[in-house]
Amino acid sequence: MNHPLPSTAIIGAGISGLTAGKMLNDYGVPYVCFESSDRIGGNWAFGNPNGHSSAYKSLHIDTSKHQLSFRDFPMPTDYPDFPHHTEIKKYLDSYADAFGLLDNIEFENGVTHARRLDDGGWELETQRGQRRRFDLLVVANGHHWDPRSPEFPGDFTGVTMHAHHYIDPKTPYDFSGKRILVVGLGNSAADIAVELSSRTLDNTLTLSTRSGAWIVPKYFAGKPADKYYHTSPHIPFAWQRKFMQVMQPLTTGRPEDYGLPTPNHKFFEAHPTQSVELPLRLGSGDVVAKPNITRFDGDTVYFDDGTSDDFDIIIYATGYNITFPFFDPDFISAPDNRIDLYKRMFYPGIDDLIFAGFAQATPTLFPFVEAQARLVGAYAVGRYRLPDVAEMRQVIAADQQFYTGHMLDRPRHTQQLDYYLYEHNMRTAEIPAGVKRAHLQGPPRWAGVDAAVDAAVEAQLEDRL
Amino acid sequence: MNHPLPSTAIIGAGISGLTAGKMLNDYGVPYVCFESSDRIGGNWAFGNPNGHSSAYKSLHIDTSKHQLSFRDFPMPTDYPDFPHHTEIKKYLDSYADAFGLLDNIEFENGVTHARRLDDGGWELETQRGQRRRFDLLVVANGHHWDPRSPEFPGDFTGVTMHAHHYIDPKTPYDFSGKRILVVGLGNSAADIAVELSSRTLDNTLTLSTRSGAWIVPKYFAGKPADKYYHTSPHIPFAWQRKFMQVMQPLTTGRPEDYGLPTPNHKFFEAHPTQSVELPLRLGSGDVVAKPNITRFDGDTVYFDDGTSDDFDIIIYATGYNITFPFFDPDFISAPDNRIDLYKRMFYPGIDDLIFAGFAQATPTLFPFVEAQARLVGAYAVGRYRLPDVAEMRQVIAADQQFYTGHMLDRPRHTQQLDYYLYEHNMRTAEIPAGVKRAHLQGPPRWAGVDAAVDAAVEAQLEDRL
Repeated sequence: MNHPLPSTAIIGAGISGLTAGKMLNDYGVPYVCFESSDRIGGNWAFGNPNGHSSAYKSLHIDTSKHQLSFRDFPMPTDYPDFPHHTEIKKYLDSYADAFGLLDNIEFENGVTHARRLDDGGWELETQRGQRRRFDLLVVANGHHWDPRSPEFPGDFTGVTMHAHHYIDPKTPYDFSGKRILVVGLGNSAADIAVELSSRTLDNTLTLSTRSGAWIVPKYFAGKPADKYYHTSPHIPFAWQRKFMQVMQPLTTGRPEDYGLPTPNHKFFEAHPTQSVELPLRLGSGDVVAKPNITRFDGDTVYFDDGTSDDFDIIIYATGYNITFPFFDPDFISAPDNRIDLYKRMFYPGIDDLIFAGFAQATPTLFPFVEAQARLVGAYAVGRYRLPDVAEMRQVIAADQQFYTGHMLDRPRHTQQLDYYLYEHNMRTAEIPAGVKRAHLQGPPRWAGVDAAVDAAVEAQLEDRL
Repeated sequence: MNHPLPSTAIIGAGISGLTAGKMLNDYGVPYVCFESSDRIGGNWAFGNPNGHSSAYKSLHIDTSKHQLSFRDFPMPTDYPDFPHHTEIKKYLDSYADAFGLLDNIEFENGVTHARRLDDGGWELETQRGQRRRFDLLVVANGHHWDPRSPEFPGDFTGVTMHAHHYIDPKTPYDFSGKRILVVGLGNSAADIAVELSSRTLDNTLTLSTRSGAWIVPKYFAGKPADKYYHTSPHIPFAWQRKFMQVMQPLTTGRPEDYGLPTPNHKFFEAHPTQSVELPLRLGSGDVVAKPNITRFDGDTVYFDDGTSDDFDIIIYATGYNITFPFFDPDFISAPDNRIDLYKRMFYPGIDDLIFAGFAQATPTLFPFVEAQARLVGAYAVGRYRLPDVAEMRQVIAADQQFYTGHMLDRPRHTQQLDYYLYEHNMRTAEIPAGVKRAHLQGPPRWAGVDAAVDAAVEAQLEDRL
């Protein structure tokens, strides 16, 4: 099944799959995008029938539109600084429309099983019971849809749910007049705690956190705070962390100021939580902070400061698992969200498989997945090629140390990555090296690009890499 | 009806009446407090049956407890930084309890008419149809209960209401799925706009403001922002305003950053609005800012930037009138909230009348009314006496220029006053001068204090002034 250009399958039509598809189009690579839902957008398709959206009704993105915008498709100028999820969805719809992406998407035909063929290439089984073969597989099924919940000793007899299923104060439960415990201190935990602690709902709201977190504002001095955030590749990363640690008290102060536990990490050593409202709710007594849970007994929850309290509902806002339901688990999986990928994209030893979007990129996923998508296209046409497996493993270890060595060793943080440094490294070092390797190694297994690709594609490529 | 100490009536058992009563007790002055409701607390008695509370269900005070606490009755240490109205009410209850104030209050027996007698003293008519005579009258009926609404040309056919009647998103109307216009940009306007703009309610929320306003956060660098606010009497007030104007951009930036109109005044020249949430809601597109209203036509509202929009409900969060329903209007009134009082307490020419609590004190009313209450006690026993009417009028004009000369000439700002400067002036200049006047003038009309007061009271007085 060799083409001059590889037949490619993309799993998922969220932001990673859409950008990958757009770039494959740019490079003239034929592809099919398999989407289990009846719509694009994945996480940003509120109420997505495939259950893969974690958006709640009031969700606004935590990153300002200036950072969020795809580099080749600016956000509408009339958008607010922090768009609502409905606006993000509209933006993705117009992106798909502008680049003709819908034609390549098979809706309600997700991949149920992906088997690698002995000689390379893939056989996919789909929702509709088809078996389909492709040269190249792009995995873009996202990592914000499979809820992860911690386990504690004892039994809690009240209602337990994950933030993934939270919609609004009436859905999926009537959150009024309730004793609510939110577990976690990420953005979802903060948003949900703020929303449900409104005095108009007559709830009591307790927030339990294990690691603590640093809270940063969405605005600083009248500008979206992330406008000030632009890591430089020209200053040692550790120095920049130090600078942020010195500056942080000027913005929101220490978590202890609001009654939160002392974080078990310095500022900028783990993903901070963006909320202007949570500190206020804590300071107003509407949200009460507690440390980690030690055990349950009936409707009583014990905390590790020796206190306890009774609750009707526990909401776990404790993150998501990276899950590949279409791979046999002993083939590829990500236990504790750990999966070693070269440049977060390539699984050493399997050269016709690309992962797109598998990082917790700071400040946001959007430009990150776009940067990865560019490489998806270049790799498919053989313009960029990989080093050998041993070198890949070395680089993976070094990158992991660079991006997360200073962070807490937690499933939440294994995928942490600074977009600016990543993009700079890819653009100035990794891609030129990969282009050089392509010249040395010649075309990839699945294609004879240099010979077969037509002049138009060739000219297009010159523009790109 | 001469006593050694004057028989005194207080109108109202809110914070001004309660503190006045406490200080009269301290000085041994007999008094009756007439309260129209069945409870104390006035504005802070949420759902007050007398209709005089403007508190909404989610209201937290905009001043931190550190500033709020009465100097002689600290707030409970377990209170949050910004207490809820229920906590303020509890605090006032325990204050009244601790100082035995309830014994002197006649509940559901408000003053319906107050007539000054020809030879001085007062005849009061009360709710229960009584006529009661007193030597001295303390007016403490508050200035946050009589809603003021602007008028615009044309007729609006939707629902119109004042923020005074706003309780929560279901009361007094079902605020969901509505096109809502909030008029004003004070604290109530900000709070209500934030609450009703929650995406969970499916409203559209527009905010119209005439003068604009500067927004300040409730927290700065992890501490209640008002902890940084302490005007010094030793540095020219104008310099301190200038300093605040220079520093302000570091906190929340300019209103235009969020789409608000440019304020028609510099920072600190009018009462700023405290909200961390409003800038975020504006920046998230959940609240849309508009300039002043020009006219109505049906359900359409026209704004003075030439735009218009349709609305179901208009909420006027446009402040309150100072109203004395018990005085004949041609006796004493406060048109456009203007009433010229010596040290905001004494009406020149009527020496047996004291106003308590009639200022818009920055940062908060609580310590201000307490400072005034001390003078109520001292004045009642003749320890402090007034200058002549001509001097009072001069001082009134000079004080007005000092406190509000730099401010907008608006009903909202006529009563603006800096508590720190006021208290410092009273303590170091005005009270010593008044004590000296008392020695020169001798006892007041209604009493022969120096002769009649017993040794215990005299000893107590020495402690105080």
